[in-house]
Amino acid sequence: MPDGFTLEDELTLAGRLADAAWIAIRPHFRALKGVDNKAGGPPAAQPAARPQPTATPSIPAKAPFDPVTEADRAAERAIRAILEAERPHHGVTGEEYPETPSSSGYRWLIDPVDGTRAFIAGLPVWTTLISLVGPDDVPLIGVIDQPVLGERYLGWPGGAALVKDGTQTPIRVSACSDLREATIATTDAFMFNPAEQGAWTHLRATARITRYGLDAYAYARLAGGTIDLVAESGLKAWDVAALIPVVRGAGGIATDWRGNEPKLGGQIVCASSDGVMEQALLALRRSATLA
Amino acid sequence: MPDGFTLEDELTLAGRLADAAWIAIRPHFRALKGVDNKAGGPPAAQPAARPQPTATPSIPAKAPFDPVTEADRAAERAIRAILEAERPHHGVTGEEYPETPSSSGYRWLIDPVDGTRAFIAGLPVWTTLISLVGPDDVPLIGVIDQPVLGERYLGWPGGAALVKDGTQTPIRVSACSDLREATIATTDAFMFNPAEQGAWTHLRATARITRYGLDAYAYARLAGGTIDLVAESGLKAWDVAALIPVVRGAGGIATDWRGNEPKLGGQIVCASSDGVMEQALLALRRSATLA
Repeated sequence: MPDGFTLEDELTLAGRLADAAWIAIRPHFRALKGVDNKAGGPPAAQPAARPQPTATPSIPAKAPFDPVTEADRAAERAIRAILEAERPHHGVTGEEYPETPSSSGYRWLIDPVDGTRAFIAGLPVWTTLISLVGPDDVPLIGVIDQPVLGERYLGWPGGAALVKDGTQTPIRVSACSDLREATIATTDAFMFNPAEQGAWTHLRATARITRYGLDAYAYARLAGGTIDLVAESGLKAWDVAALIPVVRGAGGIATDWRGNEPKLGGQIVCASSDGVMEQALLALRRSATLA
Repeated sequence: MPDGFTLEDELTLAGRLADAAWIAIRPHFRALKGVDNKAGGPPAAQPAARPQPTATPSIPAKAPFDPVTEADRAAERAIRAILEAERPHHGVTGEEYPETPSSSGYRWLIDPVDGTRAFIAGLPVWTTLISLVGPDDVPLIGVIDQPVLGERYLGWPGGAALVKDGTQTPIRVSACSDLREATIATTDAFMFNPAEQGAWTHLRATARITRYGLDAYAYARLAGGTIDLVAESGLKAWDVAALIPVVRGAGGIATDWRGNEPKLGGQIVCASSDGVMEQALLALRRSATLA
């Protein structure tokens, strides 16, 4: 890169960023004192149109909820502090704090707790996402870190690895080439619009096993060879950037729902092989958003 | 117990059974060579009623699949070998091998890999389930073991604990008393019958966060205080027996979908509090199976 750092340097730095994130996150995992609600305070009381019957207890209406944890914010601060000190010429884009502009065309995309619902439920499938993207928003390296499991997935141009217990092992997508044999995943089928739900229903009815609620960990396991297809929509840039180098480095395919180069956000599909991807795109293309 | 062993003895033994199971399972996790298909061999070719169009590739029809792994069988053999040597007067009931009758009224219910779909997908939320049940099928102690995470949940009359990194810590259900604030879980909403699906839809629309695909690990996290309600149907005896001592030992409530004492199988609901349970039963009772 023009600043003299190599991608290997940047992968090492990304690992240190993930370590710093976990130090900030750890006190909060399974010890939540409160969950902020981005949707704001309690809803204003609505005047009842008529007296409500009270004889039978009723299931109360759903409360609005958009989880943000202290962990997310503390970890983003920790990551930003390191980047401001060591890469002042790089930009930083995260969910919780304003964007730090780049003076070099390179920027870090970070999501300290991807999978806040899993985090709140005490499940070890949330991840810390870190990516360095170059000019034209091309993701160069990606890290998907799951510190409770001690699993760190790394991706770079031409390779991917799992670091666990201090050992780095190359990873490779599965040999699955038929959607009928595939294990597929999406985070929340209820977040799809009706057209997307139709496509997903088709995939689910075809595939062997379907998993939900994994967020970016699904892409990590696709790179690790135990999940064969992941399709999601409505993603943000910091959700997507880290996944692409990991999936591609492990030999997988990443596109949008038309089969084109994925954007940093929106509809994403990743697969272990051309065979699985082609079968999936038959359904996904029909509900692809307009480019 | 009449044979002189205490429940503490049996909890210690159950821990050794879980250790033996993991030794048998470990070589197979994320290294699957083959997945047996209980549904039998390849389906017989169906004569085509008319020539199929071939210009457009079509998404193929779903293949039948009932996952059983070598891991499951090897671990059940390992557990049975220990029990036959050390508790020959106890019965053993598992999924993979014929029942060993009991000469004492006591029997072990075992499920070495509960959550085979999670296992095949390489996800660390499958568990090994071990329970000792007394006369009249009352579960006395339960173990929910997740060895990839190094988490072992124990339950006995009046207490429950999480053993991790060699340290045993008491666990307690959450303080959640309102379904609107609850994190709820079920393994697969598509396995519900239509009446059950209606009830689940109601719960999901009311609760704050919904998680899927966790099998018995959901009950472990209910006991650990990060999930507040779990409802499932179609369970087998070896799926249920270990859960009840863990959930109740941690202060939780376990019933069938009518709010009665749960049977060893069928419809089960567990909750962190009377408040959450009462709200949930409003929906679940309508789809409870006849007693």
